[in-house]
Amino acid sequence: NHYIVCGYGRMGKILCKEFKANNVDFVVIEKFEENLKDEEDLLYIIGDATKDEILKSAGIKRAKGIISLLPSDAENLYVVVSARFLNPEIFIVARATDEEARIKLKMAGANKAICPYHIGGLRIAQSVLRPNVVDFLEFATGSEFKDIQIEEIFVSRDSKLVGKTLKDAKIGEKLKAIVVGIKRADGKIEFNPSASTIIEAGDIIIGIGSLESLSLLSQMASGEKEII
Amino acid sequence: NHYIVCGYGRMGKILCKEFKANNVDFVVIEKFEENLKDEEDLLYIIGDATKDEILKSAGIKRAKGIISLLPSDAENLYVVVSARFLNPEIFIVARATDEEARIKLKMAGANKAICPYHIGGLRIAQSVLRPNVVDFLEFATGSEFKDIQIEEIFVSRDSKLVGKTLKDAKIGEKLKAIVVGIKRADGKIEFNPSASTIIEAGDIIIGIGSLESLSLLSQMASGEKEII
Ligand SMILES: [Ca+2]
Ligand SMILES: [Ca+2]
Repeated sequence: NHYIVCGYGRMGKILCKEFKANNVDFVVIEKFEENLKDEEDLLYIIGDATKDEILKSAGIKRAKGIISLLPSDAENLYVVVSARFLNPEIFIVARATDEEARIKLKMAGANKAICPYHIGGLRIAQSVLRPNVVDFLEFATGSEFKDIQIEEIFVSRDSKLVGKTLKDAKIGEKLKAIVVGIKRADGKIEFNPSASTIIEAGDIIIGIGSLESLSLLSQMASGEKEII
Repeated sequence: NHYIVCGYGRMGKILCKEFKANNVDFVVIEKFEENLKDEEDLLYIIGDATKDEILKSAGIKRAKGIISLLPSDAENLYVVVSARFLNPEIFIVARATDEEARIKLKMAGANKAICPYHIGGLRIAQSVLRPNVVDFLEFATGSEFKDIQIEEIFVSRDSKLVGKTLKDAKIGEKLKAIVVGIKRADGKIEFNPSASTIIEAGDIIIGIGSLESLSLLSQMASGEKEII
């Protein structure tokens, strides 16, 4: 139930730092040992991630996901195809240099393909058009600032929230959390659900609130805690 | 009141596309004419953005902002210093290749410095840790999907919202919009404000809702429309 990170370059380093901060188990595959010097507390394999035996030694068959951040689109495509072949269920993310590569990586079996220049260009546009929204979302998605978070919370069938409306569950009133979306078990998303919306088992609640209120909501949604 | 985009590479193209979609006035400065071929409807200057006369011919003295997306940190730093010298009030965004460059660009006068690999790495981490939050935010920040938006809305002193609580303004009840934050005139942000929070002139409301409800809220906040 671990993740495999292929390539320990600039993006790989940032990703691994976030994984550590979130207690995610992962192993890095990197070709050049010198790129790993001075790294403490990092599980890694020196080798070429386009080779099946290296992917196997990283435990691809039992891994939850693989993130391919090799320098070229060709190498990342190769890893996507190899990973999908070795583990049909694995969640695959790959880096793309442009929109063309993004489409090909998804065709080859990547669940997500991310183009840093595309995301960077959009972010710059947003920081000019909506600077305060960008700041708000940086606070909400970053883990340093605990007063405001945006989280997804799975509703278990054991939760006492099941069958209650948002109003009766008192998520706003008592928990001081806001439900901005509910993804239903069939994949449909209800945006800004009204107070009379009924919570169902298998829902994924998109909530905004303090770390503390969202942790409480999460415990209520898992069935670990009674509702308040 | 226009923007200047220096460098029409991959990030520059994405940025300009978003600017067009949002009816932002801008002019591009690009060194190589061949990078601009096949571009219709694009205002541009062929030249080197590190030269003051080129920045002046792009109207830097009356521009609202400048975005420097040249290939090297050294060139972007040069543009930041030149732009700040030529227009002390201008909003400056620059691309950085790493955290070190990001700090230097900000020291030199950039209002924001954005590192695409950093943002890309964080986005990948989020798409593994919180895939549904990432999807939600793509819907909310992208302009294609109109059922859900996140916007910042300035409250004018002429608005009838001034002095009202969020509850009395009926932003939730009538407009079906959610206020997730209020940035006060002094720069402080109140997250998830309660129903009894009073709206003040000069506030910036961070709202989530449909394009339609946020447009209405925006008209009410500008004083253009009475409150509902
Ligand atoms: Ca946060
Ligand atoms: Ca949208």
